[in-house]
Amino acid sequence: MIHPVPPGTRDVLPDEMRELRALSLRLHAVFERAGYGEVWTPAIEYEDVLRRGDESPPEAGLRLFDDRGQVLVMRSDATIPIARLVADHYGGVPAPLRLCYFAHAYRSVERGSGRAREFLQGGVELIGVPGAKGDAEVIALAIDALGEAGLRRHRVGLGDGMLYRTLLDATEVPEAQRRPLLEALWRRDLVALEARIDALGLARPARELLVTLPTLRGGPDVLARINASVGAALDNLREVYELLAERGAADRLIFDLGLLRELGYYTGTIFEVYDPAVAFALGGGGRYDGLLGRFGEPRPACGAGLDVQRVHLAQLEEERTAGEGAA
Amino acid sequence: MIHPVPPGTRDVLPDEMRELRALSLRLHAVFERAGYGEVWTPAIEYEDVLRRGDESPPEAGLRLFDDRGQVLVMRSDATIPIARLVADHYGGVPAPLRLCYFAHAYRSVERGSGRAREFLQGGVELIGVPGAKGDAEVIALAIDALGEAGLRRHRVGLGDGMLYRTLLDATEVPEAQRRPLLEALWRRDLVALEARIDALGLARPARELLVTLPTLRGGPDVLARINASVGAALDNLREVYELLAERGAADRLIFDLGLLRELGYYTGTIFEVYDPAVAFALGGGGRYDGLLGRFGEPRPACGAGLDVQRVHLAQLEEERTAGEGAA
Repeated sequence: MIHPVPPGTRDVLPDEMRELRALSLRLHAVFERAGYGEVWTPAIEYEDVLRRGDESPPEAGLRLFDDRGQVLVMRSDATIPIARLVADHYGGVPAPLRLCYFAHAYRSVERGSGRAREFLQGGVELIGVPGAKGDAEVIALAIDALGEAGLRRHRVGLGDGMLYRTLLDATEVPEAQRRPLLEALWRRDLVALEARIDALGLARPARELLVTLPTLRGGPDVLARINASVGAALDNLREVYELLAERGAADRLIFDLGLLRELGYYTGTIFEVYDPAVAFALGGGGRYDGLLGRFGEPRPACGAGLDVQRVHLAQLEEERTAGEGAA
Repeated sequence: MIHPVPPGTRDVLPDEMRELRALSLRLHAVFERAGYGEVWTPAIEYEDVLRRGDESPPEAGLRLFDDRGQVLVMRSDATIPIARLVADHYGGVPAPLRLCYFAHAYRSVERGSGRAREFLQGGVELIGVPGAKGDAEVIALAIDALGEAGLRRHRVGLGDGMLYRTLLDATEVPEAQRRPLLEALWRRDLVALEARIDALGLARPARELLVTLPTLRGGPDVLARINASVGAALDNLREVYELLAERGAADRLIFDLGLLRELGYYTGTIFEVYDPAVAFALGGGGRYDGLLGRFGEPRPACGAGLDVQRVHLAQLEEERTAGEGAA
């Protein structure tokens, strides 16, 4: 007799758990060595507190009710609760703050979507270091952590969360028309994106810019292929690249100017981490200079999170592939 | 501006988290060395699945609703989900199964009660080893783990979850009168217990037995002070004592014949772990031979769970006291 667990959750048995624990310990050691102190936030929080940090629809979180009828929500990411923790415990502390975490996050998912409702995240948050310097530190740490986990071929897709929005400003796309474009871009549905752009009836140079930018992926030369004013984003990306090149990590980077990430709080550099052995992103992150201010503690910040179970799958797949190569 | 977290939950900052992680690793190493493989069960499960293992009222768990309206509940202990996991993944496997876990559990608590709504448990479950042999293995492991955590003065209170119930049978207390007696005993309210027993109007020897048994605490001689047929419980406790004496752990044991534990599934030996430096139990456990059968996989089983944050507080208090002693 099998007793089901909710869709998107699963049991982990000892063989896999031993590997997941070893992997978490390795990632933790990298973060700790870099000066990131681990924190824990409750798995359940008041929804109205967490909503300060996130404008996404409430269906995203799993909600429950307090004994007084207040709405609680299970943490659906680590960054917003840690922003809350920083405001509560480190208010007015000016020095940079380096925090890391290992915790499960919970999302309500559609049945049959195959997405995880419970997933283990390990990551870092760097508070108080603005701009490319902070971005590069966090991205380098994610790259190091995956190297320490035994991955050899991992890459970082690098973009800017405001880039396309700035372009929509520059090309004067009406506010009401923007959301479907950003959603198509987020889904990486470039066919739908192009159709929607064509329907706007823009002048040719504006249309070309909006259609071309999401296709720009590759080395630093792609930055030279934009002939439009998109603010400081490109300068910042160039600087991140230079700083990571100094650390010997330039060959890990792929500029991906159409990159958008799910969470709504990113204000600058964003990135995702991949390994060629598996089809899904292993994690990602970005700069969220506005988030702490929403908790009354305005400070620049940048973070990275890895999905530990996905990194584990990439480890296994890399080992399998290496084994085949040797055979 | 402070943004509150729900009562009974708390943030853990890096200094404390470092110590909690080190403590968890030590406990985990003891369990793993003894052959206990770590498992993970989802923090949320279907309520009707977990209710198979527990008849306690539903308020005990934090409940939430699925996208299809099914009732989910956050895990409120580790043992029932692991019994479910064993039935799902190890059905028909006859060999003893040794599993351990480190996970937070969640309970709804009354505001102002000071009790934790979110607490980190580390523990073991030994499946398929019946009787005193299994009990002694689990209790020895709990004692070793606390020693490894740096405690020096910890003690185990040892009783039997069926002992008082057997006595209520033997003294022919009507079924309907038993619950308030067991509740008073569970609260350790011996005054209320005695008053309720007196109200029953029992014959003097029966009354004496019911009033005296909960006061019997101490070395193995207390077992000789019961002149009544209470089934196999006393023989089993004697055997557990002998087995632990062979392991050199006899001086850790305190018989506590009035011990009752909160969870309803215990069928034999039960125990709680204490340290004189702190006023609360650090953990406990017992034998639950009926639980796996409720999931269709009848097997004897016994487990122990430690509250990691409480063990940590005992560590700190022991260090402080040792420091004072040296000064």
